[in-house]
Amino acid sequence: MRCEVVAVGTELLLGQVVDTNSAWIGEQLALAGIDSHFQVKVGDNQARIVTAIRDALARSDAVICCGGLGPTQDDITREAIAEVMGVELQRDEAVAAVIREMFATRGRVMSDNNLRQADVPEGAIVIPQTRGTAPGLICLAPPGDSHGVAGVVYAVPGVPTEMREMVRRAVIPDLQRRSGTTATILSRTLRTWGLAESTLAEVIAPRVDALEASGNPTIAFLASGIEGLKVRITAKGDDAASVRLLLDEEEAALRALLGDVVFGVDDESMEVAVAALLRHAGLTLGLAESLTGGLVGARITAVPGASEFFRGAIVSYDRAVKHDLLGVPPGPVVSEAAAGAMAVGAARVLGADVGLAVTGVAGPEEQDGQPVGTVWLGLALDGEVSATLVRLPGHRQQVRQLAAISLLDLLRRRLTARAGAR
Amino acid sequence: MRCEVVAVGTELLLGQVVDTNSAWIGEQLALAGIDSHFQVKVGDNQARIVTAIRDALARSDAVICCGGLGPTQDDITREAIAEVMGVELQRDEAVAAVIREMFATRGRVMSDNNLRQADVPEGAIVIPQTRGTAPGLICLAPPGDSHGVAGVVYAVPGVPTEMREMVRRAVIPDLQRRSGTTATILSRTLRTWGLAESTLAEVIAPRVDALEASGNPTIAFLASGIEGLKVRITAKGDDAASVRLLLDEEEAALRALLGDVVFGVDDESMEVAVAALLRHAGLTLGLAESLTGGLVGARITAVPGASEFFRGAIVSYDRAVKHDLLGVPPGPVVSEAAAGAMAVGAARVLGADVGLAVTGVAGPEEQDGQPVGTVWLGLALDGEVSATLVRLPGHRQQVRQLAAISLLDLLRRRLTARAGAR
Repeated sequence: MRCEVVAVGTELLLGQVVDTNSAWIGEQLALAGIDSHFQVKVGDNQARIVTAIRDALARSDAVICCGGLGPTQDDITREAIAEVMGVELQRDEAVAAVIREMFATRGRVMSDNNLRQADVPEGAIVIPQTRGTAPGLICLAPPGDSHGVAGVVYAVPGVPTEMREMVRRAVIPDLQRRSGTTATILSRTLRTWGLAESTLAEVIAPRVDALEASGNPTIAFLASGIEGLKVRITAKGDDAASVRLLLDEEEAALRALLGDVVFGVDDESMEVAVAALLRHAGLTLGLAESLTGGLVGARITAVPGASEFFRGAIVSYDRAVKHDLLGVPPGPVVSEAAAGAMAVGAARVLGADVGLAVTGVAGPEEQDGQPVGTVWLGLALDGEVSATLVRLPGHRQQVRQLAAISLLDLLRRRLTARAGAR
Repeated sequence: MRCEVVAVGTELLLGQVVDTNSAWIGEQLALAGIDSHFQVKVGDNQARIVTAIRDALARSDAVICCGGLGPTQDDITREAIAEVMGVELQRDEAVAAVIREMFATRGRVMSDNNLRQADVPEGAIVIPQTRGTAPGLICLAPPGDSHGVAGVVYAVPGVPTEMREMVRRAVIPDLQRRSGTTATILSRTLRTWGLAESTLAEVIAPRVDALEASGNPTIAFLASGIEGLKVRITAKGDDAASVRLLLDEEEAALRALLGDVVFGVDDESMEVAVAALLRHAGLTLGLAESLTGGLVGARITAVPGASEFFRGAIVSYDRAVKHDLLGVPPGPVVSEAAAGAMAVGAARVLGADVGLAVTGVAGPEEQDGQPVGTVWLGLALDGEVSATLVRLPGHRQQVRQLAAISLLDLLRRRLTARAGAR
């Protein structure tokens, strides 16, 4: 089974909007075991959309058209699909009723344009809308018709949240049914921090070897920029319960090899992991940030409910603020002594159980004879104070981002070890 | 003149990497007056890359292939282009010498694979590499050849920095020469904050009308997410000097209408604008952040050299920190009084000339009876204290981001007015 993606929108070609939808759909197709060999962007021009769909159907079994389903005159994906199918558009009164109802309940006046979204190619199956006002479509091109196309054309909205929900709910299951796949395929991603890709590969090599014979589950590596490396487990089976069991078993086997290198699962960020550990331990946190300038606090407070455990931060960017407010002793401020004193000072000034601190050289220039990327992390907890040196690669923004996640990871490991010891 | 983009890489189809290159190239083509009707992603498979290039040449005059020029066996764009052209690859000894030299000066051992990057299709023009090791290519398909293709195929690396430099330096000028365009086209973007798109359109309508007759320069609007709206001026002329003059004149005319709504030009962010004003005024800054949790400090310190004017921040996330450390009087902390007191407290505690503060409700739940999006901005400067209420739309992360940029904008306007009054 092969499926292409046609992303519709002149704004995509002009670079005003980056097409992230195709990448997301491509990932879902791969996870569902469906090949995608070509993905195309085309503007809001009916003849060209028709060309793009026909070319795609000539090469593949299915096409997902993304975008161009809205109410404006620019939204002509419906018309283009009808032309490819050699049929007319007709108003679906059930869809029209839903659209009218949606406007009525929101107390808004509906212009007639909105009913264009209820026009569907004859013979099309409607994918009911749940979030926006545009329904999706499933259209079958009969094999050997006069246009020489055969296959299935899906249409989904271009708004990412609406598109994702509809692809998950209706498109992937329909594709799997048509491909004769009755298997359930699920994946789970373990997120890691602290190992290089080659080291990570060595550590989990025993599992990769063990799985080679059965090929189920499979393991893949994904880099995710500065947020660490991901290990994705993909498993296949007759039903969701048995597939989840395979994922559980493989996750346990990988965690036994990786230990506390794993910080989260799927969309779980480092700050979510830290927040869960702080809540569990019943500890409050105070920060002292220098080169990160507030990045660590911004990440912690991105977690809803952070006020339960986060007291605040002292961003001591200026040297005098470190000495006067945090009580850092005279001397160099990118140092073991400064990092420790900042952590102690943060806990004291902010009235927190845990003091966490970061000081270092972000660049562009070296500071006090220390090269760019020299970063000290400080931690004060349970009456103990420690400081850790890391040397981070890259330029100013990368050093700052890596310093923030390194600091959060330090706390995560300490709290994990602490919970294990109790 | 029509030019398509073929982005090469299996990782793009699988969604492991989002193809931002095509969007960027599409924008450059549009600015250069060249149409781009289709953009395609294809995997690392020679037959499919050949298909993608042939299809593109059948529809358009030129194709830019992006990616697949590296040293590994997966990098087969060179081979695919040679197949399309019906020629062989041959080693370009001058390019090979540059690659050997690059490894030698970095003291690294070169594997022979790297010399694959010196293999070019017979008859191709080499675009010399300046940053990486892979040169770009310009290949001409003769009209009416046996493959039925005609036109020009460019190859550029997939690494964004290398790609951009090469497209700007060699590809766009070559396309313009072939299209018979001798004109120089340049653009300049004015970045604005604070007006809705419809209001902005009304304000600059006189300029849009005035330019309609000549069509040079032209004006376009671009949304840029939460960072405000952009007004792009594009001008055309015989040489760069005369085009810059047109841009200067139009910028002045637009600024006269827009006033201090314009915060920057091109890549200039809000924090860069604020930093320049603080430096110019010789003032130091201290922050007090609540719902933003450090976002404002993180933005300010993203500007290299921020240590010249930025003292630091008190992230007073917990209520007690506001009262105890910043001297906020007892009572509600999302209030005019609290925002003003936080600003005064930040300036005092951090020893800064300017105190800037933000307190509000990010959600997910309301606080002290105030709805999500209620945000107070405080400013203490020149012995005056003021507080401003804003009501921001969206959910937690959007409210936090909008609060941060609103606060920076408040300071920007105040410093601009202050500089004008002196």
